[in-house]
Amino acid sequence: QATSSVEIIMFLFNLQELAGEMVLMFSLFSVSTKAPIQWEERSVTAIKGPSGRWMIPPEAKESMDKSKIGLKGPLKTPIAAGHPSMNLLLRKTFDLYANVRPCASIEGYKTPYDDVNLVTIRENTEGEYSGIEHVIVNGVVQSIKLITEKASKRIAEYAFEYARNNQRISVTAVHKANIMRMSDGLFLRKCREVAENYKDIKFTEMYLDTVCLNMVQDPTQFDVLVMPNLYGDILSDLCAGLIGGLGVTPSGNIGANGVAIFESVHGTAPDIAGKDLANPTALLLSAVMMLRHMGLHGYAKKIEMACFDTIRDKKVLTKDLGGNSKCSEFTNEICRRVQDMD
Amino acid sequence: QATSSVEIIMFLFNLQELAGEMVLMFSLFSVSTKAPIQWEERSVTAIKGPSGRWMIPPEAKESMDKSKIGLKGPLKTPIAAGHPSMNLLLRKTFDLYANVRPCASIEGYKTPYDDVNLVTIRENTEGEYSGIEHVIVNGVVQSIKLITEKASKRIAEYAFEYARNNQRISVTAVHKANIMRMSDGLFLRKCREVAENYKDIKFTEMYLDTVCLNMVQDPTQFDVLVMPNLYGDILSDLCAGLIGGLGVTPSGNIGANGVAIFESVHGTAPDIAGKDLANPTALLLSAVMMLRHMGLHGYAKKIEMACFDTIRDKKVLTKDLGGNSKCSEFTNEICRRVQDMD
Ligand SMILES: CC(C)[C@H](C(=O)O)[C@@H](O)C(=O)O
Ligand SMILES: CC(C)[C@H](C(=O)O)[C@@H](O)C(=O)O
Repeated sequence: QATSSVEIIMFLFNLQELAGEMVLMFSLFSVSTKAPIQWEERSVTAIKGPSGRWMIPPEAKESMDKSKIGLKGPLKTPIAAGHPSMNLLLRKTFDLYANVRPCASIEGYKTPYDDVNLVTIRENTEGEYSGIEHVIVNGVVQSIKLITEKASKRIAEYAFEYARNNQRISVTAVHKANIMRMSDGLFLRKCREVAENYKDIKFTEMYLDTVCLNMVQDPTQFDVLVMPNLYGDILSDLCAGLIGGLGVTPSGNIGANGVAIFESVHGTAPDIAGKDLANPTALLLSAVMMLRHMGLHGYAKKIEMACFDTIRDKKVLTKDLGGNSKCSEFTNEICRRVQDMD
Repeated sequence: QATSSVEIIMFLFNLQELAGEMVLMFSLFSVSTKAPIQWEERSVTAIKGPSGRWMIPPEAKESMDKSKIGLKGPLKTPIAAGHPSMNLLLRKTFDLYANVRPCASIEGYKTPYDDVNLVTIRENTEGEYSGIEHVIVNGVVQSIKLITEKASKRIAEYAFEYARNNQRISVTAVHKANIMRMSDGLFLRKCREVAENYKDIKFTEMYLDTVCLNMVQDPTQFDVLVMPNLYGDILSDLCAGLIGGLGVTPSGNIGANGVAIFESVHGTAPDIAGKDLANPTALLLSAVMMLRHMGLHGYAKKIEMACFDTIRDKKVLTKDLGGNSKCSEFTNEICRRVQDMD
């Protein structure tokens, strides 16, 4: 993976809503936790390039090319005509082919489920997200789902490597190859082939509908799940719901050669923007994922513990977590706990 | 809808597993409940027609053409090479364009959720199930999702009619039109247009991923949901999971002019086949849906009450429901209660 010599991290944001307070919060945060990282703040709000195509601003692109690693605040795609989804544009620009979302029950934050501990790994570049669509005749439209051997193999390998490196026991390939025999069939075949090289990891395969059914009945039966793009979009949100929603779920988008962007996937919550009320947990835990990705395991562990301890103690919590503290108070409490560990 | 003059119902099954005991159970059942229906039992295991194409046997087709209404036992698609999915073949043969699955919490059958009371309405004929797939070049495959104005309008109208006729408050269109702008966009546009004609029903639209997230956090916020084929496949199973699984969830496949097949969607459970251990609830509740479809509301109500009362009382339950009674004992108990109501 990446090394601890990487010290500059790009903090990606757009010019709206929560980003401002998140940036402040993070400056404070890295000072107090003494993690050897330096932030470069860049707006990623897309601009129209010389050729008329939407692109992320060159300053953000350069920063990312240099540091390889980004932490992304909540983004909102501007409602300008033809403006692309910022999330899709970032995935594409840096070929972030794997979306990784660990979902683990948080002690003290009650949901209908206990002991959830699974990871969804989503193919992030093709499938139903190909963007290829046609009108065949008036009133008849087709969208194309594109599955390639290359991308399927790559994501399957990522999933098994992830399982091995994170002491996971099994990988489940999620598919509808009973319906999309060729496309999901290809995806599934690649998973099976890759599984052959990872005899230490148990491999299973399951229909997407069956996964959803079983997931809400007993999520503890799942470990690592790997799947094409759209199924990942669905399942990752479903699983986030099981442990408390997008406000507490970290996410990482992984590319080749250590390139990665970690992110909170929740929205910008315009209703509370600027009021110091946001819950920074998803972003914090994404930063923890980022530190691990950089090999900074000690820092990751401390921050993660401080965050979970704060939630478990229930004394300083933001509103959505059931408390009445401000974002800054919650963050300060976590920083205080990190400092106490030294 | 259909009328109470229909008296012959086709009971569809294939030649395996649970079907046998289900048929017996049902003969007993209709005798004791005195519902004015007569069963014609037909196997629907597909056969190869003269032209070499798979088809359901002519005797089943004729029976269905005559009675218009079928009740389908658990089917297993034979593992013969090229054998089509029996479910898909039935939907296609009778143009059953709407799959309707009411999911309501069952008193006495505990799951992590209470007060679920929603209905998924799935477009059953096109979308990702078009069956059109190509190899573009070696290692690159595409599947085509086909959305038509006609089918989208038809399912949207069905959903709103259903909502109105069943005292439902809202219809939510489930889509990913942010990604599949043309295909899901068309589907969504038709829903919006149809909504204009049903001002008495609240219309909302939501991304599929957001629905999944919200569904596991608070399913009580949903009422009627309408969506393209694959999303319906996923969501209907997810929702069944919320109330206890496919063993207790009824399903109806609706076509034009009153044609309909009601079904239990669970598998054939080969491990307990022939042991009188199966749970007939899903099939029973599907029969209740069928009676309502036929306008036989009195019978429907009685059987439904008897079934729910039996479950709530917890005295005579099949194994999977938490008891240790046999399928026949559970069914007898329900029949007894129906007779007591007279
Ligand atoms: C914003 C949207 C384009 C995106 C997606 O559908 O992939 C989102 O749901 C996600 O999961 O990141
Ligand atoms: C058996 C299979 C073809 C089917 C589907 O995918 O539609 C099933 O999951 C269903 O929901 O009826």
